[in-house]
Amino acid sequence: MKAARRVLLLGAGRIGQVHARALSQAAGAVMIGVHDTDAARAAELARQYNTVPIADPEEALASGATDAVVIGTSSDSHLDFVGRAARHGVHVFCEKPLALNVADIEAAIAVCRQYGVALQVGLNRRFDPNALEIAGAVRAGRIGRPLSMRVTSRDPAPPPREFIRRSGGLFHDMSIHDFDLCRFILGDEVVEVMTMGSCLIDPMFAEEGDADVATICLRFASGALGVVETTRATGYGYDQRIEVLGRDGALESENLTAHRVILRDRRGQSAPLPLPFFLERYEIAFGRQMQSFIDALGADDPAGAIAVSGVDALLAHRICDAAAQSWRERRPIVLQPADGG
Amino acid sequence: MKAARRVLLLGAGRIGQVHARALSQAAGAVMIGVHDTDAARAAELARQYNTVPIADPEEALASGATDAVVIGTSSDSHLDFVGRAARHGVHVFCEKPLALNVADIEAAIAVCRQYGVALQVGLNRRFDPNALEIAGAVRAGRIGRPLSMRVTSRDPAPPPREFIRRSGGLFHDMSIHDFDLCRFILGDEVVEVMTMGSCLIDPMFAEEGDADVATICLRFASGALGVVETTRATGYGYDQRIEVLGRDGALESENLTAHRVILRDRRGQSAPLPLPFFLERYEIAFGRQMQSFIDALGADDPAGAIAVSGVDALLAHRICDAAAQSWRERRPIVLQPADGG
Amino acid sequence: MKAARRVLLLGAGRIGQVHARALSQAAGAVMIGVHDTDAARAAELARQYNTVPIADPEEALASGATDAVVIGTSSDSHLDFVGRAARHGVHVFCEKPLALNVADIEAAIAVCRQYGVALQVGLNRRFDPNALEIAGAVRAGRIGRPLSMRVTSRDPAPPPREFIRRSGGLFHDMSIHDFDLCRFILGDEVVEVMTMGSCLIDPMFAEEGDADVATICLRFASGALGVVETTRATGYGYDQRIEVLGRDGALESENLTAHRVILRDRRGQSAPLPLPFFLERYEIAFGRQMQSFIDALGADDPAGAIAVSGVDALLAHRICDAAAQSWRERRPIVLQPADGG
Amino acid sequence: MKAARRVLLLGAGRIGQVHARALSQAAGAVMIGVHDTDAARAAELARQYNTVPIADPEEALASGATDAVVIGTSSDSHLDFVGRAARHGVHVFCEKPLALNVADIEAAIAVCRQYGVALQVGLNRRFDPNALEIAGAVRAGRIGRPLSMRVTSRDPAPPPREFIRRSGGLFHDMSIHDFDLCRFILGDEVVEVMTMGSCLIDPMFAEEGDADVATICLRFASGALGVVETTRATGYGYDQRIEVLGRDGALESENLTAHRVILRDRRGQSAPLPLPFFLERYEIAFGRQMQSFIDALGADDPAGAIAVSGVDALLAHRICDAAAQSWRERRPIVLQPADGG
Repeated sequence: MKAARRVLLLGAGRIGQVHARALSQAAGAVMIGVHDTDAARAAELARQYNTVPIADPEEALASGATDAVVIGTSSDSHLDFVGRAARHGVHVFCEKPLALNVADIEAAIAVCRQYGVALQVGLNRRFDPNALEIAGAVRAGRIGRPLSMRVTSRDPAPPPREFIRRSGGLFHDMSIHDFDLCRFILGDEVVEVMTMGSCLIDPMFAEEGDADVATICLRFASGALGVVETTRATGYGYDQRIEVLGRDGALESENLTAHRVILRDRRGQSAPLPLPFFLERYEIAFGRQMQSFIDALGADDPAGAIAVSGVDALLAHRICDAAAQSWRERRPIVLQPADGG
Repeated sequence: MKAARRVLLLGAGRIGQVHARALSQAAGAVMIGVHDTDAARAAELARQYNTVPIADPEEALASGATDAVVIGTSSDSHLDFVGRAARHGVHVFCEKPLALNVADIEAAIAVCRQYGVALQVGLNRRFDPNALEIAGAVRAGRIGRPLSMRVTSRDPAPPPREFIRRSGGLFHDMSIHDFDLCRFILGDEVVEVMTMGSCLIDPMFAEEGDADVATICLRFASGALGVVETTRATGYGYDQRIEVLGRDGALESENLTAHRVILRDRRGQSAPLPLPFFLERYEIAFGRQMQSFIDALGADDPAGAIAVSGVDALLAHRICDAAAQSWRERRPIVLQPADGG
Repeated sequence: MKAARRVLLLGAGRIGQVHARALSQAAGAVMIGVHDTDAARAAELARQYNTVPIADPEEALASGATDAVVIGTSSDSHLDFVGRAARHGVHVFCEKPLALNVADIEAAIAVCRQYGVALQVGLNRRFDPNALEIAGAVRAGRIGRPLSMRVTSRDPAPPPREFIRRSGGLFHDMSIHDFDLCRFILGDEVVEVMTMGSCLIDPMFAEEGDADVATICLRFASGALGVVETTRATGYGYDQRIEVLGRDGALESENLTAHRVILRDRRGQSAPLPLPFFLERYEIAFGRQMQSFIDALGADDPAGAIAVSGVDALLAHRICDAAAQSWRERRPIVLQPADGG
Repeated sequence: MKAARRVLLLGAGRIGQVHARALSQAAGAVMIGVHDTDAARAAELARQYNTVPIADPEEALASGATDAVVIGTSSDSHLDFVGRAARHGVHVFCEKPLALNVADIEAAIAVCRQYGVALQVGLNRRFDPNALEIAGAVRAGRIGRPLSMRVTSRDPAPPPREFIRRSGGLFHDMSIHDFDLCRFILGDEVVEVMTMGSCLIDPMFAEEGDADVATICLRFASGALGVVETTRATGYGYDQRIEVLGRDGALESENLTAHRVILRDRRGQSAPLPLPFFLERYEIAFGRQMQSFIDALGADDPAGAIAVSGVDALLAHRICDAAAQSWRERRPIVLQPADGG
C-alpha cells in the first residue's frame, strides 16, 4: 500500500470547507494543514478536521512534506498560488476559475507544465452522478449520433450586488460549468456562440452591466447544437438539468431531491423541490472530484492522469468570453480553434 | 335552441378526415357535404360520416344553405377558397397555413373583413390540454412575471423529399405551431429572432436547402426570452413539450401517452412512449378547435368571437420568415411591429 | 356493410346518460329510443341524442325493430328487464350488478341462454387503457409468472346515507370492479378471501353495517396472491391504480389526469390530481365497452363473442359475498369451485 | 467540547463493515477496536479504519476504556454480548434481531435496565430519508387521521438455503423491518395480524417451511389498517416503498436510485432501477442511525435518549410471531397488549 498523499488546503471559506470535507473522506489522502488569510477561520477548520492551521503557506509548500495543494482561496490569488506550488514540485488542485483571463489561465497551465506537476481544475459537475450517467450513455452509443444538447442552469436567488461585481458576470460565473458539461458530455468542441439575454429579475444586474436571464446557443465542430438556459433566480430553488438528443434516442436528467416522497392532497400531487443549492446538489460530485485528484496522484504520470485539466478550464473560459461578447454585440461569435491543447 | 350550423368540408385527405371527425362530434354543427378534387375520396368520406359528396363547391357556397366552410385542401388553394367563401358570406375555418406568404395571408384577412365573415385558422395546439393549462396558469399569475419559455418540438421521422419541397421548410412547416404557442402562452409579441441550425439527420434536407435540427431564440416585447428546439426525427417518436419559467415558479408539460403503465424489469423502469404523431397527440385539440369555431359562429359577432384569427396566422408566419432568414444569414433578425392587427 | 344494430336504452339517469353517449359514438349502432320511469328525463335524453322517448319498453322489445337493449335502470329491475328482452330474442347489455344475489344472477344467465341471446355485463374497467395494457403484458409473459397483484381503489368522497343502504355495501358496490379486474388480469380464479375492515371516515357507515376502509386479500388457484385496498373517501380525489408482480418484473399503473403539466413553486413540484370520478376516469372505457358489445352483435355467435359475460358477473359477485362474510366473521372464507361456467 | 465516545465494534462481517463505516464518519465517536471470531477479518477491518483488532472482547469491555459497544456478530450471540457489555456499564448498540425469541429479547432489555446502560437496536429503516419524511408529515398532520398504510418490501433475489434455515423465516428476517416502520410511522400499536402466503418462487422455501411471497394485514389500536406486501425475489431488484393514506391526503415514497437520468428510445422511457440491495439503499440510514446512537450517549440520560429501544425490538418481534402463526394456522391472530413498555 502506498503512503497517503499529504495535502495542504489553502482557503477555509465556503468552498474551502467543501474541499476539507471531501479530503477527510477521500481514501489515500491526509490533510496536513489549512491556511487562510483569516487565521481564526483556518484554526476553526483545522480543529474540525483534526489538522493544523498553517500561517505561512510558502514554508509548507517548500518543506518537502507537501505532496499536493488544494487551492480554494479568492479567485484573484489562484494564479499566484498555482505558480508557487508548481515551483516547489507540489501537485495542484485549483478551484474554478483557474485564473481571471485567458492569458493568466495560459500562464497557470504553462507553469505547471514547466515544473511537471499535475493540475486539476474544480469543474466539479463532471463528477455528478447524472452527468456521469449521461456522458457514459452518450459514449456507449445508447442514443446514436448526438444532434443537440440542453443544459438548464438556474440559481435559486440573486447574489448580493458586491458578488455580482466580483463574479465576472453571469456567463463567467455560472455558465462556465454548463459549457464544460457540454464539452465533456459531447466530447466535442464549440465553434460558434450566440447569446440572447435580458435583465428581468432585478435592475441591479443591468446596472452592473450583467444579464439575469439568458439563452446561449452553441454550435459544435460536429454540427451538433447546444443550448444553455440560465437565470439568476427562480421561485422554486436550484434547477440543474441536462438533456441530450441523439439520432436514436435521448437522455434527460431530473433534479436530485432530499427524499422521494410524494404528498397527495386537495392541491395536487407534490414532489419535493430540488436540493437547495450547489453545496447540497453537488456534494457527491465534490467528493468524487477530490477522490479523482487523489487517485491521479498515485498514477505513474499524475499530470496525464488528471480528469479535468487546465486546458479544459481554458476552453471553457473562451466560450464564456464568446458568450459575453455575443450578448454585448448582439451577433454570433465564431471561436478560433484552440491552440492550448 | 338555435339551428345547427351547416358546414361544408373542403378536402378529404388526411387533415380533411381529422376535421370530418371533429365536425361529427361537435355540438351544434351538421356537415352538409364534402368536396375533394378526388371525387372517390370525397364519396368515401361522405359515406363514412353520413353526408353527401359535393362536386361543385362554388355552387354549394352560393346556395345559401352553407353557413360555414372548413378548408382542408392543399395549401396553395387556401387563399382562393377563403375568397370564394367570403364573397358568399360563408364563415371560414382554414387549416394552416392560411396562405403561402405574407401578402397572400394579408389578402385572405382582408377579404374576410370586407365581407364580414369570421375567419379561424387551424393553429390547433392552442386547444391542447397541456397548452391550455399552461396558458391559464400563466395568465392567472401562478408563476409570476414570465422570464423565459421553451418549446421542444420534434417530429418522429423524416418526411419524404417531395413533402420537404412543398412544406416551405422546417420553420414554416413545423415551427409555426411553436411560435404561435409562445405568443398564445405569453400573451406577448416577438421582436427579435436568432436561429442556429444544422443538417445532421439526412443530407436530403441540406440538398433541399433545409435544416433538420434547429434552435430558434426569440425575444419578446416584454424582454422575456423564448427558445424553440426542433428536429425532423427522433429515435423515440413525437416529442411535444413546453416549459415556462416565471419569477415565482415554472410550468412544464410532459408528453401525453396512450396509457400510464410502468414496466419494471431487469432493464429499468419503463414508461410508455409519447403518442405517435400529431393525429393522435392532438386529437383532443382538433376536437376542441372545431367546437370553438362552431361556438363562435353562434355569437352575436362571429368574427370577433374567433379564438385564433387571421392576424395570429400572419404574426406566426412573420416569425417563420425571420427564423428562416436568421438561419440563412447567420445573424439576428429584428421584427418590425405588426400593422396587421 | 351490415346494417347498424338498433339499440333501445332503458334508463336515462346518470349511467343511462353515459351509455347514451357511448352509443352515439359507437360505429355500427343506432339508438332507436330511450325509456325511463321518469318520462321527462327520457324525453330530454332522447332530444339530446336525436332519438325518441319510449313510454312502453315491452312494446318496443316485442316490435321486432329492436336488436339489442342497454339496461341502465335501477339495480332491482335488472333481472326483470333481462328476462323480458331475452324472451323477445333481444340481445342484452346490462349495467352491473346483473342482479342482486347469486340466485337472481344465475336466473339472468339462464334466461339468456334459454333464448339464445347475448348477455354482456357492465364491468367496464376491463376496457380501461391501463387495465388493457397490464392484462396484455401479463398474458404476453412480459413479467413472467404472476406472484401477486394489488388494486388500489378509493372513492373521492362518501356517498349519501341513502345510497349506502341501497348499495349492497362497500364490497358489492365498489370492490366488485376490483375483483373482476383481478380475475381478468391474472386469468385466474379466486379460491380464498380474507378481509380486514374498519369504520374510520364516518360513523354513518358503521351505523349502516358497513366498513369505510378495507383490505381484502385474495388467494388464486395458481397460488398467486391479490390484495384490494379500498376506501370510501380520500382527501385527493379518485384513486384507481393497479400493480402486478411477476417472477421477472412488475407492472404498475398511475392515475389518469386531465393534463400533464407540472407546476414548480416554493411549495414543491406539483402534478395534477387524478380525474375526479368514474364518469371522467372511465370515459374511454365506457366507450370501448359499448363498441365491444356492438361488435359482438355482429359476430356469427354473438353470445360467444361477448367480452364480459354473465358468468364473469356471477364469479365477481361470489367474491363480494366472501369478502363481506370474511369481514363480518373475521376469518378466511374458502370459495367453492364455480359451477356457473 | 465533550470527549469522543470510545466505541468497540464486535463483528467484522458484512454488517460489521457497514457499522465500521458509519462509525468512522460519525461525529463524536472513535472506534477503539474490532473483534471478530475470525481474527484475520478483524485485522483487515481494523487496518482499513485505522484502529486495532481485539482478541478478547471481555477484556476490552472490562477495561474502563470502552464507552459503548456495537454488536454486529451472529444473531445467536447477541444476548450474550448485550449482557456482558451491560454488566461492565458499557452502552449497547445491537444489530437486529436483538435476540432470537421473546424471552431472550426481554432478558436483553432487562439486563440493560438493571445496569443502567443505553440499548439501541438496529432497526435502521427509521433513519431512511423517505421514512423520516413520511413519519414527519404524518405527525405534522399533513394527511389528517391515518386510515391505512402499505409497505412494499421485496428482496431482489432468493438467499441460499442455508441462510433461509438460519434466518428465522420470511417474517422474522424481512418483515420485522416493515412492521417496525408501521409502528414508527403511525405511532400506533398492532392489535391483530392476518397473513396470506405462498411458495411460488422456489420450492426450496416450502421445503424449509417458509413462504416466498406473502401479504400481512395489520389492524392498529386506532382502527387503522396496515398491509405489508413482501417477496423473496423480483425481476427488477430491491423494491422498498411506503404509502400512507390519511383522511385528508396520502404520502407515497418511490425507490431511491443511483441517478435521475431517463433514457428515451424506441422501447420506451426508461428510468433507473432501484439501488441494488440494503447496503446501498440504506447507506444514509445506517450513517444516521449510528450518529443517533452516538448523540444519545452524550445526553444526560442516554438510555432515555435512544431512538429505537429494546421494547421496539420486542414489539416488532411479537408481530413477526403473530404473522408466522397466522400464516401457519390460516386465521387472524389477536395480539395481547404489550407489557414490555
